[in-house]
Amino acid sequence: MRGHFITLEGIEGAGKTTQRDALAGCLRDAGLQVLVTREPGGSDIAERIRAVLLDPANTCMQGDTELLLMFAARAEHLHQRILPALAAGSWVLCDRFTDATYAYQGGGRGLPVEQIATLERLVQGERRPDLTLLFDLPAAVGLARARGRSEPDRFESEQRQFFERVRDTYLARAAAEPGRFVTIDASQDPAAVGAASIAAVQGYLARVRPGQGGPVSDT
Amino acid sequence: MRGHFITLEGIEGAGKTTQRDALAGCLRDAGLQVLVTREPGGSDIAERIRAVLLDPANTCMQGDTELLLMFAARAEHLHQRILPALAAGSWVLCDRFTDATYAYQGGGRGLPVEQIATLERLVQGERRPDLTLLFDLPAAVGLARARGRSEPDRFESEQRQFFERVRDTYLARAAAEPGRFVTIDASQDPAAVGAASIAAVQGYLARVRPGQGGPVSDT
Repeated sequence: MRGHFITLEGIEGAGKTTQRDALAGCLRDAGLQVLVTREPGGSDIAERIRAVLLDPANTCMQGDTELLLMFAARAEHLHQRILPALAAGSWVLCDRFTDATYAYQGGGRGLPVEQIATLERLVQGERRPDLTLLFDLPAAVGLARARGRSEPDRFESEQRQFFERVRDTYLARAAAEPGRFVTIDASQDPAAVGAASIAAVQGYLARVRPGQGGPVSDT
Repeated sequence: MRGHFITLEGIEGAGKTTQRDALAGCLRDAGLQVLVTREPGGSDIAERIRAVLLDPANTCMQGDTELLLMFAARAEHLHQRILPALAAGSWVLCDRFTDATYAYQGGGRGLPVEQIATLERLVQGERRPDLTLLFDLPAAVGLARARGRSEPDRFESEQRQFFERVRDTYLARAAAEPGRFVTIDASQDPAAVGAASIAAVQGYLARVRPGQGGPVSDT
């Protein structure tokens, strides 16, 4: 028995967390085991690393440091939480994973993609998400939503151009890996985004378990 | 103008910190600028990472996480403190650096040397210490000294065999790079260890500035 590793990606204000929790509810209603988690963080040590990463006081952090902290938290989260859950047959719904590192530290900060790929291999080996839902919307729309709800953290304090680069990197990655990514228009109303998310999971299940139908229903 | 980057290495209880501070006093008496620092840590963000690394509560930390946190702290410390000090012509005396990562995470924990080398290149490029003083003594002697002075941190709680592997790795690295390392018998009394440290720095200066004599004196 082996679970399913689904990541949810997108810029601030794309609605990832809402959709993750709704999707988890659908899967649980279907009687499935679900681990709902997030990055950076998701385990005790990784959450301590997250606190260093997101602290707005740490404005002068080196790009290399940020990248290494992201993967330090990921190593912990992957081995302590995600892999054991998958081995036990759970669905894992993770708010951000390594695509976010390519998008934020690569696209946003301009760190070399090869460095990110090196760390990805070091921490993950060949492990990748089974399915990645990209919640896409213009940076200005996402930022307006995110800034309406709380004080900005160290990432949310970046300028709009930063998030446009992040979005562009996400879209480029989705285009390069159409078998793993499903891009969802996150500027729609939440019900439509939710329906598209469920359809994406059903499509994934139809691919990996052809002929069996899926356990997820939006009715 | 360019400074001198000197690292002090050795297992717990080898007397690195005492010798570092004594050496700094000699250099300052000679009118030289000195930055006295340590790893992991040495800058605000790096000290926050150090706190996560050394917390005895974090017993179950993944090896990869530990390694990535070490280099995350190092990237910060190197770029924020060490390189600016060297560029300003200072002497930098650093209690532990990347040799410690090879010794503790490589020799002690058994993480692959190639992973450490990959991260070393990523964070440091070709930058290496100019001189490394290895304070060598049997693990049992060092541990008895260290345990007499404070509660053990997460590393000091390891067993003696761990520190024997750490010591062996240090000695192997010193043997492989005789131009950079000077190994000092740290089981001697502190005055003799101090004299050997000063002699090592004088020897280094004689090599890099032949004919000029050195600024450091033990009289």
